[in-house]
Amino acid sequence: MRVILNGFGAVGQSLAGLLASRDDIYTSYGTKIRLVGAGDSGGGACLEAGLDLAELVRTKRERGTVSGCGRPADPKEMIRDLEADVLVEATPSNYVDGEPGMTNIMTALKRGMHVVSVNKGPLALALPSLIEMATYNGVLLRFSGTVGGGTPILNYAKNSLRGEHITSFRGILNGTTNYILSNMEDGMAFGDALADARSRGYVEADESLDLDGLDAAAKLTILANWVMGMKVTMPDVRRTGIRDVTLQDVRRAAEDGSAIKLVASCDGSLEVAPVPVSRSDPLCVNGTLNAISFTSEHSGTQTIIGRGAGGIETASSILRDLLDIRRAVAG
Amino acid sequence: MRVILNGFGAVGQSLAGLLASRDDIYTSYGTKIRLVGAGDSGGGACLEAGLDLAELVRTKRERGTVSGCGRPADPKEMIRDLEADVLVEATPSNYVDGEPGMTNIMTALKRGMHVVSVNKGPLALALPSLIEMATYNGVLLRFSGTVGGGTPILNYAKNSLRGEHITSFRGILNGTTNYILSNMEDGMAFGDALADARSRGYVEADESLDLDGLDAAAKLTILANWVMGMKVTMPDVRRTGIRDVTLQDVRRAAEDGSAIKLVASCDGSLEVAPVPVSRSDPLCVNGTLNAISFTSEHSGTQTIIGRGAGGIETASSILRDLLDIRRAVAG
Repeated sequence: MRVILNGFGAVGQSLAGLLASRDDIYTSYGTKIRLVGAGDSGGGACLEAGLDLAELVRTKRERGTVSGCGRPADPKEMIRDLEADVLVEATPSNYVDGEPGMTNIMTALKRGMHVVSVNKGPLALALPSLIEMATYNGVLLRFSGTVGGGTPILNYAKNSLRGEHITSFRGILNGTTNYILSNMEDGMAFGDALADARSRGYVEADESLDLDGLDAAAKLTILANWVMGMKVTMPDVRRTGIRDVTLQDVRRAAEDGSAIKLVASCDGSLEVAPVPVSRSDPLCVNGTLNAISFTSEHSGTQTIIGRGAGGIETASSILRDLLDIRRAVAG
Repeated sequence: MRVILNGFGAVGQSLAGLLASRDDIYTSYGTKIRLVGAGDSGGGACLEAGLDLAELVRTKRERGTVSGCGRPADPKEMIRDLEADVLVEATPSNYVDGEPGMTNIMTALKRGMHVVSVNKGPLALALPSLIEMATYNGVLLRFSGTVGGGTPILNYAKNSLRGEHITSFRGILNGTTNYILSNMEDGMAFGDALADARSRGYVEADESLDLDGLDAAAKLTILANWVMGMKVTMPDVRRTGIRDVTLQDVRRAAEDGSAIKLVASCDGSLEVAPVPVSRSDPLCVNGTLNAISFTSEHSGTQTIIGRGAGGIETASSILRDLLDIRRAVAG
C-alpha cells in the first residue's frame, strides 16, 4: 500500500514512528505500508521504493521540513501526479475555507485515491459532497482520527452497533474546554483556568477553536454525517462556547449534583452548548477526557470514554483506517 | 439465512419479536432471516418456509413451550438434521458441564453450521476447543451477547481497536453484584442489599453465579480468549466473590475516594475479586451498569459503559452477530 502523507506535524511524525516500529503489519494484515511521498509547508519528498521513516523525522526536527529527504517534490503536485493508493491528509484544520486540505482531498479523490483525513476543516465544511465524490470515484474516505483521537468512536457507532438504530447521541468532544470547566469546578475563575490550560499546551493557537466550540461543532458535524446519515455541515450547528460560563453557574450546577460541560448533542437538531450534566451520568468525565453516549433503539445508552487527542493516539487511528481500507479493497 | 433458535426464554422471545419488527433487514443488509426451527425444554417446532414469529411467542406464553407451532420436532434432532445456516444457542448457562448447550454447539459446528451463542457455559469451559472446531469446519462462532448484553464490548475490542495491541483490561461485568455493592455504599448491609436485588429480579436462580463471581469469571474467560488470544478456560481464573465484603470495607474505601467493585482483570493472569476502584476512574459505575476499560499500546485507556443484560439488548446482539456472519460469508 503506497501512501502519501501531507502534513508532518505531531500526528505525521507519530505516524512515521508508528509505521517504523510496527514490523508485524505485514504478517498480521498482509500488506506493507510504504510512504512514497511526504509533504509539509516547507516542501516535499518522494521515493517510489518508500521514504526512510527515521530520516524523515530527523530531517523535520533538524530543519523544520521533510524537504531534502528522497527526491524533492512539490506537495500539491505530488498529490496530483505521484502513483499512490492513499492520501493521508494531516494539515491543520481551517474552518474558513478548509484549505489547503480541501483541495488536497478533492484532488486525491478525483484521481481515484483513497483518503484518510485527520484534518477536520474540509469534513466539517463539506462532508456530504466529499462522501459523494468518494462514492462517485469508487474510493474510500476515512477520518477516524478526527473524533476522539485514538478512541475509535466513529467505528464503534458504525460497526459495533451494526444492526442497531442510533436514535440520538451527546458527547464531550473537546478536551481543552473540559479541562477548563473541570478547573472551574475546583474553584478556579475562567481566566485562571484558561491560563492553566494554555501553560500545559492544551489550547489551540487560535483559541477560538476550543473556547467558542468550533472544534466540538466540527466533530459533531462529522458524527452526524457518519453515524446518523444526516447531510449537514458546520453552519447547521447551533453553537455556544464557554466564554460566558461563570463560577456561579458552576456552583449552582454542583448544588444540583451536576457539572457544567460543553456538550455536543444530536437529537433531531445539532447543538454545542455548555449545559449541566448529572455527576452520576457516565458522560460526566473530568480533565481532558472525551466521552460520548449513544442511545440506540434496543441496546440502551452506551458511553465510550477515552483520551481525545495526542499525536500517537491519532496516528494509531490513521493506521486503523489504512488497514480498514486494505481490508475493504482486498474484499 | 435459515436459523435454528434453541432456547426460548426472555432472550429467545425478544429475538423473535425483534426479527418480526425489523422489516428493514432485507433492504439494509441483503438477507432475510428465516427462523426454520425453534426449541425449548418442552419440545420443538420447525418449518422450512419459516415459523410464524408471533405465533411462537404467543404459544410459548400460553403453554410454556413453542411445541405445537409448525411441524413438531425434537430440539436435539433438529440441530442434527434440519437444513439451516446458523444455530442460535440460547439455553441457560451451566458451568458444571456446559450442557445442553455444549452438545448443541458441537453438533452444529461439526455439521458445518455457523453458531451464535448467548449461552456462556460451553464457552467458559471450552472456548479454545470450540474455536478450533469452528475453524476446522470452516464456520463462524460468534457470542457478542455473552459479555455486556447489548453493549458490543467484544466487537469493540476486536474490530474498533484493529491495528492496536490491547495490553490489559479490567471490567465490572456483573450488574447484580454491582447493584448490591452500590446499595452497600448507600449504607445497606450485605443481606439487605442482596434481598433488595432479589426483589427486583436481578439475582440468578442459582445466586452463586452472581455472588461467587462465576458469571464474571465466565465473561472474563471469553474476553481473554477473544480479545487477547489467550487459550484459557474458567479454572484459569482466580476467583473471589462478594459474600465477605463488609460495610466496613465499603466505608474504608469511601474514605479513600474509592468504591469496592467486583473487578474482573486480565493483566498477565486472570482474576475476579472485590477491589477498591477510585471514584474518578471512569470504570467506577454504579447500579446495574457494566463497564470495561481496555488499555492499549498507543491509544491509552478507553472505557465502555452500558447496560450489561436484558432480553431485548441481548437479542439485538444476536442480530448483530447474524448480520456479521452474513457479511463474512458474502465476502
